[in-house]
Amino acid sequence: MRSSPHKTDGERIVIAHGGGGELTQRLIAERFLPKLGNPLLNPLTDSAVLPVEAGRVALTTDAFVVQPLEFPGGDIGRLAVCGTVNDLAVMGAVPEALTLALVIEEGLCTDLLDRIVDSIARAAGEAGVVIAAGDTKVVERQRGDGLTITTAGIGRMREDVRLGMDRISPGDAVMVSGRIAEHGLAVMSAREGLAFETELRSDVAPLSGLVGSLFEAGAEVKFLRDPTRGGLAGVLADLAEQTGLSVEVEERAIPISAAGRHAAELLGLDPLTVANEGKVVCVADGSEVEGILKILHGHPLGRHAACVGRMLASQPALVELVTTTGGRRIVPRPYGEELPRIC
Amino acid sequence: MRSSPHKTDGERIVIAHGGGGELTQRLIAERFLPKLGNPLLNPLTDSAVLPVEAGRVALTTDAFVVQPLEFPGGDIGRLAVCGTVNDLAVMGAVPEALTLALVIEEGLCTDLLDRIVDSIARAAGEAGVVIAAGDTKVVERQRGDGLTITTAGIGRMREDVRLGMDRISPGDAVMVSGRIAEHGLAVMSAREGLAFETELRSDVAPLSGLVGSLFEAGAEVKFLRDPTRGGLAGVLADLAEQTGLSVEVEERAIPISAAGRHAAELLGLDPLTVANEGKVVCVADGSEVEGILKILHGHPLGRHAACVGRMLASQPALVELVTTTGGRRIVPRPYGEELPRIC
Repeated sequence: MRSSPHKTDGERIVIAHGGGGELTQRLIAERFLPKLGNPLLNPLTDSAVLPVEAGRVALTTDAFVVQPLEFPGGDIGRLAVCGTVNDLAVMGAVPEALTLALVIEEGLCTDLLDRIVDSIARAAGEAGVVIAAGDTKVVERQRGDGLTITTAGIGRMREDVRLGMDRISPGDAVMVSGRIAEHGLAVMSAREGLAFETELRSDVAPLSGLVGSLFEAGAEVKFLRDPTRGGLAGVLADLAEQTGLSVEVEERAIPISAAGRHAAELLGLDPLTVANEGKVVCVADGSEVEGILKILHGHPLGRHAACVGRMLASQPALVELVTTTGGRRIVPRPYGEELPRIC
Repeated sequence: MRSSPHKTDGERIVIAHGGGGELTQRLIAERFLPKLGNPLLNPLTDSAVLPVEAGRVALTTDAFVVQPLEFPGGDIGRLAVCGTVNDLAVMGAVPEALTLALVIEEGLCTDLLDRIVDSIARAAGEAGVVIAAGDTKVVERQRGDGLTITTAGIGRMREDVRLGMDRISPGDAVMVSGRIAEHGLAVMSAREGLAFETELRSDVAPLSGLVGSLFEAGAEVKFLRDPTRGGLAGVLADLAEQTGLSVEVEERAIPISAAGRHAAELLGLDPLTVANEGKVVCVADGSEVEGILKILHGHPLGRHAACVGRMLASQPALVELVTTTGGRRIVPRPYGEELPRIC
């Protein structure tokens, strides 16, 4: 499908590709529509028009500035689709459509752009969403950073699902759907040029299927969140702050691969604070843990799911880690400097 | 409302403001929520949740990379709201909610950011939309260009409105809602440091009210589009290409201010190809012109509305301009290089 007979525009993106004229039209017609096209996008009208049933829709957005643009296990395109899909899924919504806005730095290789668009198309297919609308702008060299992507997404809220921090009580269990820190560590390793014996790959994946399997099985989930920027520590800090309860976490229960642990040590990072892009934190009544873990373990993205802690009424509301050696330490909210440009 | 007791983060944006940790939280709590907050945004959940009635929704996105960030008549914030609102309005939708994603270059002055957020809030108020969800990322110095903003928007499609190029017939009239080229010329003048006797200001404005007045009066409009990148010439080229009809335009009928004409001459630009951000092109049956112009003239944004041309069955399908001197010239589709970074 990717016929590109016009090579007069060269192999790199130029400013005029973002000008809204003939070159923009050709970029869309030749490089985007053959891969991303669908009945909502194809008319290229000012807005896509979607039929909706009465109910509630979820709406979200994320900007992606990851460097490098391609990293083991993914790229900025896959990340931009999954990040927004996951923000919809953890709200209890079925993701339906995304918008896609590209800000390209002049000089970007069209081969790289093509790979990223391929990746967007694949990830959207995995997640069961369509790209309904888009925009492309180009900035001069040194005024951008290759490519930044912003996606927004809408999803239909599941009728029978009610999620929220307000449902959380003392004694509730905190689970995580798999091995933590793999996205951030893979990106940081690629950036630092580190090679590990075992290849560490980003976990970037759409969670709509995994989360859907919980709801479809009728699991009594109280709260879901994907631990992206700020990592698991960030979500735990939110839980403590917003519920007024403490969170006690067992370090030995937290799933992490040997490669991940090794990479975190080499990079001097606390894996608790490192971003994930294909994991979900799940809070439920203690009596639900067995059932929920069974569902998660049955899904390819949840094989390493584990219960890592519980909510406690103890004051003040803090996140406390019981270390592998039996010690205890307070886990603070990440400040935000540890891992720039990770998503 | 804008209390900012914590000055430890200085007067400029730093990388950690985009890290998803404590500094990001403070940026949102202190600088964004007091101005943009509303019941959809305030929970700061992963997605906003909106009730919808059964029907159709319009969904769109735009990325904004304008330089300079502030220009006579507007700024990137106002532009980002109006651009997306207008893409919804011209589809026949009532704009309801926007998402807002900021990519900030490290070092951006927080005073400038505050002014832009104020402007976003004002424009959203004028347009009758709320900011339902958002995201903020920070890139290193020299890796960005101050600030880029991507908005996405959803709107409820008006039940009784059907717009589309497929409705256009030979003899239909082409109208424009006001003086053209003012956005692009104002931005280019600011960029080039040109001072004109009469101050030229961007026309950036939400069109939801103007367009709404047409529908609410029952005007038989066939097609609407806001002539942004590529200007009026770009919309006319689309009309010819997609209807298979020619468009004959009367140069003397095209509304343009003396300041606009003067600026275009100084900058060596064809005002037909220069972006507008508060104008709409409207196609309707010739018998509707009088009624539609009356409605437009009654709205503050439509005072200079005029009928500028008509659709003709002549082949090949071209855009032909009848010049003020009575000559004729073909208006080509803008190529995309004329006006970079205008929106």
